[in-house]
Amino acid sequence: MTMKIKRVAIVGGTHGNELTGVMLVKKFLHYTQLVKRQSFETFCLLANPRAIDQTRRYIDRDLNRCFDRHDLANPALTGYENILAKQLFACYGSGGSEPVDVIFDLHSTTANMGTTIIPISNSPANLQLAAYLSSLDPSIHIYLGLHSEQNSPMLRSMAPVGCTIEMGAISPGVVEANILQNAERLVLAALDYLDNLNQGVPMTIPTTVNLYWAIEAIDYPRNGQNELTAMIHPDRQSQDYQPISLKDPLFLDLQGRTICYQEEQTVFPVFINEAAYYEKGIAMVFTKQQTVATDYFS
Amino acid sequence: MTMKIKRVAIVGGTHGNELTGVMLVKKFLHYTQLVKRQSFETFCLLANPRAIDQTRRYIDRDLNRCFDRHDLANPALTGYENILAKQLFACYGSGGSEPVDVIFDLHSTTANMGTTIIPISNSPANLQLAAYLSSLDPSIHIYLGLHSEQNSPMLRSMAPVGCTIEMGAISPGVVEANILQNAERLVLAALDYLDNLNQGVPMTIPTTVNLYWAIEAIDYPRNGQNELTAMIHPDRQSQDYQPISLKDPLFLDLQGRTICYQEEQTVFPVFINEAAYYEKGIAMVFTKQQTVATDYFS
Repeated sequence: MTMKIKRVAIVGGTHGNELTGVMLVKKFLHYTQLVKRQSFETFCLLANPRAIDQTRRYIDRDLNRCFDRHDLANPALTGYENILAKQLFACYGSGGSEPVDVIFDLHSTTANMGTTIIPISNSPANLQLAAYLSSLDPSIHIYLGLHSEQNSPMLRSMAPVGCTIEMGAISPGVVEANILQNAERLVLAALDYLDNLNQGVPMTIPTTVNLYWAIEAIDYPRNGQNELTAMIHPDRQSQDYQPISLKDPLFLDLQGRTICYQEEQTVFPVFINEAAYYEKGIAMVFTKQQTVATDYFS
Repeated sequence: MTMKIKRVAIVGGTHGNELTGVMLVKKFLHYTQLVKRQSFETFCLLANPRAIDQTRRYIDRDLNRCFDRHDLANPALTGYENILAKQLFACYGSGGSEPVDVIFDLHSTTANMGTTIIPISNSPANLQLAAYLSSLDPSIHIYLGLHSEQNSPMLRSMAPVGCTIEMGAISPGVVEANILQNAERLVLAALDYLDNLNQGVPMTIPTTVNLYWAIEAIDYPRNGQNELTAMIHPDRQSQDYQPISLKDPLFLDLQGRTICYQEEQTVFPVFINEAAYYEKGIAMVFTKQQTVATDYFS
């Protein structure tokens, strides 16, 4: 990363019911010394205030799908989150009044994904940051989603560098101390990394890193009324990042029949049984795993 | 139980985001033979249709707190759930057009309570039913809440006999196959029990049963803005039904300080970190445990 980092945003409550991020950002707003660093300005943002007040994911539309650049430019989109996204982008986006160089967006999931880093893009700066953070804890995974490009509809796409930090498994509307502490350690380490980088003394990153690239999102089996006719198979529940091969169980239908994976390619499902993805038609996301030498990034 | 049982209701979706009950009742509505019994009529009810459509706990007010008899008689209460409760009671309550003798109300919780039976009251008929069901699986607990009397605000209070079946830990908005199957086995066993009882050949129940009686609900530590200043302590998280004694940890505040239990009496916390209870001001419910001889009931 050659650019000088001037402003770093720590964002919670992009989804108002993901309390880990909300509570951690409130903590940082109260104990500001924790996130202060010498070489840049850190600021903390509770992104969706009305959704946070109501402990709901969103009011009108998922805020984390409102940052598509065409949507931001579309005056016909006037829902609460559409307006919010436009305001946030006008302020913090590239060309905004107070553009941010780095975003850490704190999320949580009902899927058993542990701590997952979702880089803003697969640029060298982003993958090096992710590689560093994952080196701090071997249980951390790095996931590159179906929207891993900068002009994505995600809030994080306002900045060129940073990541979503996804914490699970945890229910929406719940905060757990261990998960909050893990997220806090990770954010503070990320700030240290950026501060060192800014000052020309970059942290050591590992020589290789494992990436999970999204291939395909698959839905639950449904009937003509769009109702689920099958559930995640018990053998698949909570088995995020575990490989599946031909004929491994995926779903169990209401009559007790198993529905299996039918492809030859070994894949690694993630976001298995994420509550908020039922309405999006996603039961899990298949990824392929790739080990990459980190000097590839530079 | 000396009365003849004529109608049994299986209820799901009293809370629209507790999908285990919603999906199981939909299954029973589709495969009606599963719940048909010789000696009584079984019917299945999705209690809060609008909340189910929106995968929300409730629209205006928690339906499972709308059955207080004064509220049912109060014409000033006109919210969606208040009207729904009045309609349900006019139909299925005592003196209604189609009164039900037994209710099984299917719920789920983010607390790690496994399967918990919450009898409608502590009458002999209710405790015998609970004792029978808990004899089928040693992991099942029986809990008598702060509202364990028939004139309570809960939906189950419409009938004299039955229980809430509480399943956890599971996130709202999620269905898990194992949990659904446990709930299904329990409901079908309960129908068999009632059918045998009706026909004068009652099932054998165990000679003793363990009950957990609610003593007190305690809230999270909060600041003047009603925001949480502490979380469930990691040693307490997911430890529902495990005894605590003087100086055992309860909460961990945002500065990392532990807040301990300060009483001499050993208690058994339940509903630890239930998502829907944050707004009710409940972090957990203390219970006392009691082993009762089942011939006490008769």
